[in-house]
Amino acid sequence: MRATVLHSPGDIRLDTIEDPVLEADTDAIVRTVAACVCGSDLWPYRGLNKPQTEPSQIGHELVGIVESVGSDVSNLAVGDFVIAPFMYSDNTCVHCRNGVQTSCVNGGGYAGCQAELVRIPQAAGTLVTVPGDVDDAMLPHLLALSDVFPTGHHAAVSAGVTHGSTVTVVGDGAVGLSAVLAAKRLGASTVIAMSRHADRQEIATRFGADHIVSSRGKDGAAEVREILGGIGADAVLECVGTAESMKQAFLSLRPGGTVGYVGVPHGVELNVPAMFGRNQALAGGVAPVRNYLDELLPEVLDGSLQPGAVFDRTFALDQVADAYRAMDERTAIKALLRP
Amino acid sequence: MRATVLHSPGDIRLDTIEDPVLEADTDAIVRTVAACVCGSDLWPYRGLNKPQTEPSQIGHELVGIVESVGSDVSNLAVGDFVIAPFMYSDNTCVHCRNGVQTSCVNGGGYAGCQAELVRIPQAAGTLVTVPGDVDDAMLPHLLALSDVFPTGHHAAVSAGVTHGSTVTVVGDGAVGLSAVLAAKRLGASTVIAMSRHADRQEIATRFGADHIVSSRGKDGAAEVREILGGIGADAVLECVGTAESMKQAFLSLRPGGTVGYVGVPHGVELNVPAMFGRNQALAGGVAPVRNYLDELLPEVLDGSLQPGAVFDRTFALDQVADAYRAMDERTAIKALLRP
Repeated sequence: MRATVLHSPGDIRLDTIEDPVLEADTDAIVRTVAACVCGSDLWPYRGLNKPQTEPSQIGHELVGIVESVGSDVSNLAVGDFVIAPFMYSDNTCVHCRNGVQTSCVNGGGYAGCQAELVRIPQAAGTLVTVPGDVDDAMLPHLLALSDVFPTGHHAAVSAGVTHGSTVTVVGDGAVGLSAVLAAKRLGASTVIAMSRHADRQEIATRFGADHIVSSRGKDGAAEVREILGGIGADAVLECVGTAESMKQAFLSLRPGGTVGYVGVPHGVELNVPAMFGRNQALAGGVAPVRNYLDELLPEVLDGSLQPGAVFDRTFALDQVADAYRAMDERTAIKALLRP
Repeated sequence: MRATVLHSPGDIRLDTIEDPVLEADTDAIVRTVAACVCGSDLWPYRGLNKPQTEPSQIGHELVGIVESVGSDVSNLAVGDFVIAPFMYSDNTCVHCRNGVQTSCVNGGGYAGCQAELVRIPQAAGTLVTVPGDVDDAMLPHLLALSDVFPTGHHAAVSAGVTHGSTVTVVGDGAVGLSAVLAAKRLGASTVIAMSRHADRQEIATRFGADHIVSSRGKDGAAEVREILGGIGADAVLECVGTAESMKQAFLSLRPGGTVGYVGVPHGVELNVPAMFGRNQALAGGVAPVRNYLDELLPEVLDGSLQPGAVFDRTFALDQVADAYRAMDERTAIKALLRP
């Protein structure tokens, strides 16, 4: 099959490799219908993670058709259209029952999903079947459920966003934009999107942002306070993962508020005494997507939730290097890949 | 009047100084009936805060009788018995309305309360009147409401303790013991107190602790997991403030859980990537005591809540140096002072 392989930072290729096969009775093989490039894929692409020692498959978001299942997988049938959350989990262990499927005792991440076929361990607990026919218009919205929208949702849930909350979103990538939509869906009264890019501001507004703040640092935080009657936001959703973005988040938060963070932290340090003095909390982490799908999928299917607008460009799988370049150069917000 | 003054680390004295006077129309003067020594008073006593440049009054917990009030204080009368939360606040500003009176725009800390008379700014918003007569048996329970019990309660509330929660308390000082009581009051199903001192274990058990763990570090965390069926606690209440105690807290927490912290942080550093990967949150800070008194005082008055057992020794105010020594040497859990 053809699969995306990162050979070294910046060197992304569509290679021909062996088809995956069922390795355990709990596995399934899924034929990809659509995959995509995540902001977190850019960390290794840019060489900002730990040094890469050998070529490795990449990608962790997909929707597709079940190709085969192991003998222990009774809730899926060949031909089912499924959403694959970006980590696998048995969905039965104590951590899964606590809603933290990303800490499943039998869970983990799978080999690259930017490929024609993907082996999904713990398939019964991981994959969520989409009933009925799926047309192309629905595809981006379903694909968004494999990671990007539930990740934005997790930031909002972790920060305690509820009816009437004031919310600031730091980061205008696809996750940040998803967080805007998630915050409005949870009833936020005011959502401020911090963004300096017209195309992203436009989607933020479409997703319900009430205000756009393009300044950063102390000036940006001052604008947030001006909008919110003199204080920071009840909840700040940190969707980047850098030291600067985390600092921006706490600057924009009111005393007693919570930063919900989903940007994979790179070099983040916290000013604990300042947090303590202001009763500012930090909650979030790697999003337990599986935990949210039973709630979110029906709204996507009935059209009331349309998170797929973050996909602004589509690439054929053999253009995957172009897709990465577009994400890296920020000429795409989020690149959808079709095999 | 006589007032406790810290001259330099370890040198605590009862000095004779000028009586405080009303300085603003919003002030009150309170004649102390009982005060106490806080674990946080030991930081400067031990010379562990920033270097002290001159003698300064100390103490921040008291109950007493209103001696005089400024012209803007209409809800208090001379002779009222009052509880003074350890920080003052107007109780009307936006942060107070958000329940974060410790961030009141007109708030702050007051000069030492281990004294015969104390000036309380923003008295109308700060002081809470105790109706009826106060006998000596009730005194420790009311005094505990000025700081130590609401601080333990704040740890539990911040960590989201609710009906059925599993809870581990790190720290067996008066705040940690209060946190045990607070967690049980909020409905925790299992409370584990980490303690190595028989006298404190005894109070923890009286306050409702279901288990005592005397090991520390990885061994202590392993004991916690053994008690809780293989995983860490839903909520860990960090009531010390050192790097070691915070590390212990996260070691003892399950994925998706929250550390509620009220120990004033000294040298605490957080492993943000580990927190992120396990979805472990951190919430808490300096306790907004005033926010909790309307809820807690009635239970103390009807006898259903008895937090005063943390006061195991009483000293006359002129023995204040002995009180500090006893706290420092851990021969007292919490020292009550009577002028």
